[in-house]
Parts: sequence; structure tokens; C-alpha cells
Amino acid sequence: MKEYCFGIDVGGTTVKCGLFHVDGTLEEKWEIPTRTENRGKEILPDIAASIRAKMQERGIVAEEVAGVGLGVPGPVNDKGEIPCAVNLNWGYKHISKEMEDLTGLPAKAANDANAAALGEAWKGGAEGASWVVMATLGTGVGGGIIVDGKIVSGAHGAGGEIGHMNMAPDEEEACNCGNQGCLEQMASATGIVRLARRELERDAQDSILRGVDVTAKAVFDAYKQGDGLAGRVVDQFAGYLGRGLAMCACVMDPEVILIGGGVTKAGEPLLEAVQREYQKAAFAPCKDTPLRLAKLGNDAGIYGAAKLALYDI
Amino acid sequence: MKEYCFGIDVGGTTVKCGLFHVDGTLEEKWEIPTRTENRGKEILPDIAASIRAKMQERGIVAEEVAGVGLGVPGPVNDKGEIPCAVNLNWGYKHISKEMEDLTGLPAKAANDANAAALGEAWKGGAEGASWVVMATLGTGVGGGIIVDGKIVSGAHGAGGEIGHMNMAPDEEEACNCGNQGCLEQMASATGIVRLARRELERDAQDSILRGVDVTAKAVFDAYKQGDGLAGRVVDQFAGYLGRGLAMCACVMDPEVILIGGGVTKAGEPLLEAVQREYQKAAFAPCKDTPLRLAKLGNDAGIYGAAKLALYDI
Repeated sequence: MKEYCFGIDVGGTTVKCGLFHVDGTLEEKWEIPTRTENRGKEILPDIAASIRAKMQERGIVAEEVAGVGLGVPGPVNDKGEIPCAVNLNWGYKHISKEMEDLTGLPAKAANDANAAALGEAWKGGAEGASWVVMATLGTGVGGGIIVDGKIVSGAHGAGGEIGHMNMAPDEEEACNCGNQGCLEQMASATGIVRLARRELERDAQDSILRGVDVTAKAVFDAYKQGDGLAGRVVDQFAGYLGRGLAMCACVMDPEVILIGGGVTKAGEPLLEAVQREYQKAAFAPCKDTPLRLAKLGNDAGIYGAAKLALYDI
Repeated sequence: MKEYCFGIDVGGTTVKCGLFHVDGTLEEKWEIPTRTENRGKEILPDIAASIRAKMQERGIVAEEVAGVGLGVPGPVNDKGEIPCAVNLNWGYKHISKEMEDLTGLPAKAANDANAAALGEAWKGGAEGASWVVMATLGTGVGGGIIVDGKIVSGAHGAGGEIGHMNMAPDEEEACNCGNQGCLEQMASATGIVRLARRELERDAQDSILRGVDVTAKAVFDAYKQGDGLAGRVVDQFAGYLGRGLAMCACVMDPEVILIGGGVTKAGEPLLEAVQREYQKAAFAPCKDTPLRLAKLGNDAGIYGAAKLALYDI
């Protein structure tokens, strides 16, 4: 009888680990450091050792464990392979196979942003939905696409990379990816700051943002206080993000669209602005698709990784 | 032993029918008229009668038939229901259930453009691929998304409606859907004519297109002859379509991208123009994703419908 599964979210500094009941109850969570030295070769063995120790501590035997799911920062394909993971100093790795060999447990792997979307679809802001688009607004813009309850990893592990949708072909500054005009350049925390700086230069209008440290939080705070210049920045941000999400809806027509990541600490005013722009751009049958804020915060990754471990049971 | 399946493509004027071997060999195809009178209530019974007659003629018994798949012009959900189909005069209909009741055979239904994409992924331009984006350029722009070998129908049957991606938010003319700036307004046969007329008005440059009946074919013919104005129209068309497909690739990262429909009679020069613009806009891991022309022409729909009938076997 399978009672447990492990959900592991591998970050560049720490690995978040979760022991879950198969019904999605988080039994316990903990962290271990990510040892990226020596091309990160200790990362998976460290995780395996931590899982074994937890099983021993709890008196859990292998027969009770459905499996281990891992979320990893990089383009994982649906076989659990990755060509490289810059933040972990990894080259090619067959993550799921290596973890199976290390633990003797069935293992699966996915991109971390994709896993977060799966977690939110399982137990978070889109609980119960099988068709979900999620945008994660942090330093960059990540994303995840859930179709029929499963992650769309894509042919090159690039499924859900909505941060690199080419929203503004006339943009002259380059994105980190090398293209120009990516959604990430407008809808990430750094993108919002970029839009704000540009607006502050372009326009001499008085603004709360003048003379302060311009951050995404400062922009949304000023917006909530009715600052006109901040309002124009939020309109631009919401215009790009809302239109990008509307285009995602034309592709796979989700039940729910989620927005998560640090930028969404701005809360309902952000959601309302994006929803307004989404509705303008969305195809008629999708105009009323609900946009919601993600709920699980930093735990989304371990929830999604745990769900990944349950795919076949 | 299941040896056969039926693939049915329901159009506004005729119903295309195909008897297939389960390995995808088309045994026979034929057409019957689509009787749209009386709210189209004879359409499914006519199809059922034609299937029964074909089985009798060939001495095929129900036990040998895996099922019937139907492609229908409208937003079919993954349960085989449709809220309405304008060209068939249908209101709500549970297509698959009604066909099962009429024939005693398992039945499935999907949107016709989605079915065409599935057909091309099965036996056409993307044969063997399980992850496909297809754009169909006809009077409008249709599309289909195949993930893990299955149609992405979406929560409202709007999966694959890439013709309504909002590519040009500043466009002032309205699309048939009511929005402004849809891909369909630039990349359909009528969209290409619209772009050409606009360019002819905007610019006094001499052109083969002046004084002729401006059609999508005329634009591509002039382009192939090196006409400068036609070249600018094709650049615009390819820019919108290539960028739209690049955005689709950010969402679900296909193995193959297909372009089909009447407009693609223009052939390789069209494909090359779109590929060039696709590569400019695509996210790095997807830049080399192959773009190909669809192969099955008007038969794509019956192939895809037949494959739909085989989903569970």
C-alpha cells in the first residue's frame, strides 16, 4: 500500500524537501544545503541520503513510498533528463534514473516552474483544475502549463516558458535569453523596474517614485496611492502580461489562469489590472476564464514534485 | 479483434467519410451531403446510416470496428459536447453520445481543425510526432495542438484557436470574433488580401498587384516574381505568423510545427518566409524546431477523426 511520496524542490542554494501523504497532506518539510561544488555531483546523493534518513526516522519502508518527484531549475524533458542546469553546475543528467538508482524508489523530474504549476493545480490556487496556465513573476518570468492534470514539458523541456513570448518585437534592449521583446522584460520584477525607469526618464511628471529606490514593490505601492506615473507603468505591465496570458488561452484554453511569484505580493490590485487587460485581448470563449493568485508560495514546488511522483499510481 | 475505424469530417455542405484500417491505412473514402435543414437534425442519423450501409456492403461486423470519430466545425469539448455549430444549424449537442446511440459503436468528437492537426500528426506532415502545433490558413486561421499524441481541446473547446491570438493590439479594424488585432486578420487568405490592399493604398510604388484581382494567391505569385510591394506584404504576413508560432512554442514546445490550409499552396517560399520570422522570435531551445507544410490536404480531417476513434485502444 503506497502511503507516502517525497516532493523535492532543488534550488541553487537550498533543497526544499517534503514528505507527503499520497492524498496531498504535507506531513513534514525540511531543507538541506545545495552543494554545487564539483559540478554539483553531491546534490542528488545528498537528497537520497536525506530521504533515507527521513524514512528511517519515521519507520517508513520502501513499499509504502509511491516515489520521489524532483523540481529542478532547467529544461527537464518528460523522460526526466536535463541538458544542463546552470545554477546547479550540472551538465547533462538523467535525473530520474540517477535518483532511482540512489534510492531504489521510482523517481520523476520536471522543471521547477512547471512543478510549481502542478502543485498549485493540485492543492493551491487552482485546486481541482486539470487545465491550468501559471505565470510566475519573480526576477524573471517562469511558467507552467498543465494539460489533463499533467505538466507539458515539451520537446526541449521548454514547455511553459511563457516569459520568452515575443510580446514587443520593436523592443531594442536584449533579454537575458538573447532575444528582444520577451514578456520577461516587461512582467518580471526587474522588467517592472525597467519600465518604471524608462517612464521616469521619458516624462518629467512628479511621482512618488522619484528619488526612491525603484523596485517592483515601490511601483505597486505608488500605484495603490494613486501615483499617475506608477499607474502608467502598471498599465504597461498588465497590458503585456494580460495579452500574453490571453494568447496562452488561445493555445490551450485553460480552466484557470494563475499568477504567482514574489511580484504578486502586490495582491488584488495587480490581479485586477492584469484581468482587465486579459479580458480585452482574450478570444470570446475564454474571456471569463478566472485569473487567480497562486496560494502555496515557496511550497508550490514541493507540492508539484510530490504530485509528479504520483503520476502513475 | 478491432480492425477498422471510421473517420468522419462534418462540413457545412458535405460530410467526408473514411473507412480506415486501425494501422492508419485509408481503405475507402466517400462523401454524403450535409442536410442542415431542421436545425441539422438529420446530419448524425445520415452519417450513422452511411456507416451501417458501408459495414453491410463490406461484410464488417460491429465487433471489428474500434469506433467512429467525428470532426465538427465548432468548439467541441473533450467529452464530445458542443454548445453550438453555426454552419450546421446545431445548438447544444452531445455528439459522441448521440452517435453511439445511433450506431451502437464507440464514438468520439473533436473540433475539425483540431482533428486535422491530429491527422497530420498521425499520418501527415508530422507523422510520428506526439507534440505538434498546426496552423491552418484558409478563409480564417484555425489551429490544433497535439500534446502527448492527443488533441488539446481546452476548457471551452477553444484549444488551438491560434487565429485569435492578439498579435497587434493597435489594429483598428475588427476581426470576425469582435476583437482587434487577431492573427487571423493578418495570416488568413482574407487577412493577406487586407494587408495587400492596405499596402497598395499606403504606397504609390508600382506593383504587379495593381489592377489585378488581389487574392492571397496573387500576392504570393507576385512575391515569387520579385515584386517589391508583394514582398513587403509577405514579410508582414510571415512576421505575424512566425512570431505567433514562436509564442505557441513558448507555451508547449512542440517537436514539429505544421502549416496547412489553402494558402499554403504557395509552397516553399511561404514556408521559408515564415521559418525566417519564426527563428527571429523563438526562444533559444525552440529555434530549430522544424516548420513543415501539412501533407494530407482535405483528407487531414478524416485521418484525425479516425485516430480520435482509436484513443482508448
